[in-house]
Amino acid sequence: MLHLAKPTRPDWAAYAVMHAAEILLDHAHCEKKAASTAVGMIFRYEERTELMEPLSQLAREELAHFEEVLERLHERGIPFRRLPAGGYASGLHEAVRKQEPHRLLDSLLTCALIEARSCERMQLFGEALMDRDPALGKLYSGLLAAEARHFRRYVELAELYFDKAEVSARLAELAIHESEVIAAAKVEPRLHCG
Amino acid sequence: MLHLAKPTRPDWAAYAVMHAAEILLDHAHCEKKAASTAVGMIFRYEERTELMEPLSQLAREELAHFEEVLERLHERGIPFRRLPAGGYASGLHEAVRKQEPHRLLDSLLTCALIEARSCERMQLFGEALMDRDPALGKLYSGLLAAEARHFRRYVELAELYFDKAEVSARLAELAIHESEVIAAAKVEPRLHCG
Repeated sequence: MLHLAKPTRPDWAAYAVMHAAEILLDHAHCEKKAASTAVGMIFRYEERTELMEPLSQLAREELAHFEEVLERLHERGIPFRRLPAGGYASGLHEAVRKQEPHRLLDSLLTCALIEARSCERMQLFGEALMDRDPALGKLYSGLLAAEARHFRRYVELAELYFDKAEVSARLAELAIHESEVIAAAKVEPRLHCG
Repeated sequence: MLHLAKPTRPDWAAYAVMHAAEILLDHAHCEKKAASTAVGMIFRYEERTELMEPLSQLAREELAHFEEVLERLHERGIPFRRLPAGGYASGLHEAVRKQEPHRLLDSLLTCALIEARSCERMQLFGEALMDRDPALGKLYSGLLAAEARHFRRYVELAELYFDKAEVSARLAELAIHESEVIAAAKVEPRLHCG
């Protein structure tokens, strides 16, 4: 349903639970970045008026999640701090074509795939956390529905401007790229690590 | 209360009502820009952890207003479109010192003053609209309370990191600059025009 080309490696969840504090911190940064990406697209695509309200709503929801994760960090005594960027987002970005309207299609579908991978990993992380930190486990079980919805929303936005067949074919191509990028990413405590 | 150094010229509201469609369109852009500025500060000042949640909340509120104004544009059959930037924001930005921590102080207080001026003008515009377009008049009467709250919030954020006396003195200086920038701005259908 999420159109990921390959599932996450089976031992990722156990690794993530061992580094739960850093994953939570990284997650805060991911929500912030997702909001910023949506706001950036509002500015870049002002003439695509149908994108304005949905992207604004997406950005608001990402910011609300950012605040929720900040609260969880605070409760657990984990200071929020800057993190060096992992290679995932920049790796995905390499497949985004530079010419419009391809750039728009690829940007929307790349956002969709990040949401899809986040959804998959939050489910794994949430389930694995249930024994050790049920409150945090529940946070992730709750958030993954939003991630799945955001995946569909980004695909629907692409379908406003491009043929369904073109969207579907490009999504499949980008999904393969995404699975390669995440498989090649460094093993480190990140939501989108290798 | 809003610490503006000079009030808006008395005939601005009548001018704005004559160009209500363009003012409304410009207002959508202002809300979008305000959200983007808050998100930008979240990224620039990650180590100032106390700013994260308030700036995220401010950005969400600006985005909600953006969506509200888009809806009003839509109801009135006014297409959303790109607008060339007016000179107000760039004029204000010239007074922002480049060195930290001055840059942070000046950025927060510049945001505060933009909110203050928006509040003042929304009140004038809202009152002047009441006969011609009461629904739109009420929108502005409703929004100006948020603008006043945002003004105070930005000043409070500055007071987290700087002496109250320093904040107050710099706010007074920047308010004089703001009143000069807006007085010198081109007369055109913008919320922050001359």
